Amino acid sequence: MSTILDSNTVALMAARVRAKHPMIHHITNNVVTNFTANITLAMGAAPVMAPSIAESAEMAGFAGALLLNIGTINPELLESMLAAGRAANEGGIPIVLDPVGAGATRLRTDAINTLLSELKIAVVRGNAGEILALAGTSGGVRGVDSLASGDGKENVFTAFASETGIVTAVSGEVDFITDGRKWIKVYNGNPMMTSITGTGCGATTAVACFAGSGPPLLQSVAAGIAVYNIAGEIACETCKGPGSFVPEFIDQLAGLNTETIISRLRIETNL
Amino acid sequence: MSTILDSNTVALMAARVRAKHPMIHHITNNVVTNFTANITLAMGAAPVMAPSIAESAEMAGFAGALLLNIGTINPELLESMLAAGRAANEGGIPIVLDPVGAGATRLRTDAINTLLSELKIAVVRGNAGEILALAGTSGGVRGVDSLASGDGKENVFTAFASETGIVTAVSGEVDFITDGRKWIKVYNGNPMMTSITGTGCGATTAVACFAGSGPPLLQSVAAGIAVYNIAGEIACETCKGPGSFVPEFIDQLAGLNTETIISRLRIETNL
Amino acid sequence: MSTILDSNTVALMAARVRAKHPMIHHITNNVVTNFTANITLAMGAAPVMAPSIAESAEMAGFAGALLLNIGTINPELLESMLAAGRAANEGGIPIVLDPVGAGATRLRTDAINTLLSELKIAVVRGNAGEILALAGTSGGVRGVDSLASGDGKENVFTAFASETGIVTAVSGEVDFITDGRKWIKVYNGNPMMTSITGTGCGATTAVACFAGSGPPLLQSVAAGIAVYNIAGEIACETCKGPGSFVPEFIDQLAGLNTETIISRLRIETNL
Repeated sequence: MSTILDSNTVALMAARVRAKHPMIHHITNNVVTNFTANITLAMGAAPVMAPSIAESAEMAGFAGALLLNIGTINPELLESMLAAGRAANEGGIPIVLDPVGAGATRLRTDAINTLLSELKIAVVRGNAGEILALAGTSGGVRGVDSLASGDGKENVFTAFASETGIVTAVSGEVDFITDGRKWIKVYNGNPMMTSITGTGCGATTAVACFAGSGPPLLQSVAAGIAVYNIAGEIACETCKGPGSFVPEFIDQLAGLNTETIISRLRIETNL
Repeated sequence: MSTILDSNTVALMAARVRAKHPMIHHITNNVVTNFTANITLAMGAAPVMAPSIAESAEMAGFAGALLLNIGTINPELLESMLAAGRAANEGGIPIVLDPVGAGATRLRTDAINTLLSELKIAVVRGNAGEILALAGTSGGVRGVDSLASGDGKENVFTAFASETGIVTAVSGEVDFITDGRKWIKVYNGNPMMTSITGTGCGATTAVACFAGSGPPLLQSVAAGIAVYNIAGEIACETCKGPGSFVPEFIDQLAGLNTETIISRLRIETNL
Repeated sequence: MSTILDSNTVALMAARVRAKHPMIHHITNNVVTNFTANITLAMGAAPVMAPSIAESAEMAGFAGALLLNIGTINPELLESMLAAGRAANEGGIPIVLDPVGAGATRLRTDAINTLLSELKIAVVRGNAGEILALAGTSGGVRGVDSLASGDGKENVFTAFASETGIVTAVSGEVDFITDGRKWIKVYNGNPMMTSITGTGCGATTAVACFAGSGPPLLQSVAAGIAVYNIAGEIACETCKGPGSFVPEFIDQLAGLNTETIISRLRIETNL
């Protein structure tokens, strides 16, 4: 794959997910299991959800990527994530972390700190408030909603990525993805997407599908978000409201073709 | 807000949910997490689900209302509900209880008794069989379905509300809401709604969104049920079946305007 | 009911589910709770989900059938399945087992072995890889996907059914259902159904609804799969993609009439 992220590369990366059909092991929250499993299938990958510590590590060994989402975390599930994460690290399988509600409670903050210190995380994707919480800036989260805008905070996100070595994807009106040196901005998407539960978690699933299909990592992550947001913006244009958005969005993701990706893609980068 | 519940007041209360955008902390069953999160968003409130006892109380502290639903209860989750409930009581945050399947098993009966005795519950919403079980009348529940009709039982519900001080909302062909002295009957809705899983749980979410947006409580609860049922009856008229009901219903809830509320509302009250 | 499975018998069996309205107790995975509850309702039965060991056995006592699905199994949930299963066995209530991902991890293999040895299972439904794993043939499963085709393996499935006394239903391009002596092949369905999460789990729900409505068991199981697959193939013809499949499928299941069943049914049998 080209390291320059033009629209042809994004389309090729989307096709690569279908060709490789990677298994994406989700240890995720109870709200989005069904929705994100269907997103995984619609992108051409294979979802598996094995939350128990009695099998999470063994299942991670077969995966193309491991997705950890702390949306309904508890201490037992954290142990299972650590076990699966260690297996993924040993197998060279990328871990994609969704820090849902980071900063909102001590449990979430502690869980994130533990995951970041015990595991080699490849990618983190969250809203601005969550990523600011990870970077040590508090007050950006209410429950699982971001109170902060990412505008003008690109230097904070870049410093976080640079210091941790984690590709960092910040969702917002414009999505900002960086490895600490290079960055990609994705202008696709529609603000209405935030009025449907799990659309953030689903973006992390998209990232995992693309990251689990091959390098280069920064470009794969941005391509996954771009493809996800393109399907989302089309669905927002054609649906009647947040209810009909869900089936329309999955249909669009499943049917997205190269022409549409190329004609819709709006990115900017310093690659 | 007016203490007389006319259609203007109901519409204003619906607008108040959007304006206040209260965080509704759900500790709920595994079947309806996604559906009720989307209902919360469609009504203009913000869902959060933090079931672990390691954070449920802390999260409840930020909430506009705490919703406790025993649909897939277990002893650990009950402890978490109690912890969250105590935090809500200390913070003056209304607790809305959905006694799913009360009376069906000893676990559910015991859980309800514990919640009622340990916490100050603001509102309970259930079907006739469930509320009769709470009031000490058995035999009204099979699994999670009501075998009993609420017709002619209004005196039982009123006595329960009066003795406990809990605003009591009984779903049925006509919904009956009472604080033990005053009552409101809501004629909106469609019997087809019972053929979709979670529509009862979703009504409790509607109640929590409205109760979490401000007083007076009895009127807020009835307004929440009325608005929910209006969206439901429109969706039943326009959908093709129980599958297409779900997206249509969420669309209707999200798009419901003052004119539709005023033209559709059918209530009766002794206020 | 006739022991010859012609289209009239299938249609009568579908009507019997609506008439008997059996309660189907699901102890199932976190991904498909909502979807399979709505499938149960659409078929005319009543779903209940009581996963806690503190009530699973008591709830099973009221059920028409008990469905055990190991899709997100853990050691605690296995104990609850055993407790519910023993109660079902004592009450003469058929147990329907879905061995999701059997063979993929030690936990799943051990769980299946425990359930098969401790309980009298009436029916098992899975994909070819899963049933081959149950029959002692390994290597057919990746995550929760079958890598094996059932074509040419009918003798393995028949031997498994014969040795265990379990009616065995193997999903695939052609579904194969056998009691070890007699067999029924169901040609209805559409390969697109595998691109929606939970369609396999939903087929098990259909089997439980029919098995919970009365004998003869082999024919009931096949009729449940046939009706499910007929609704699925119609939904695949009319939906736009895997997202709109879901509401369309539930609508079709709920609205399926005798004429459509009779005109669509494609089965072959040695009955």
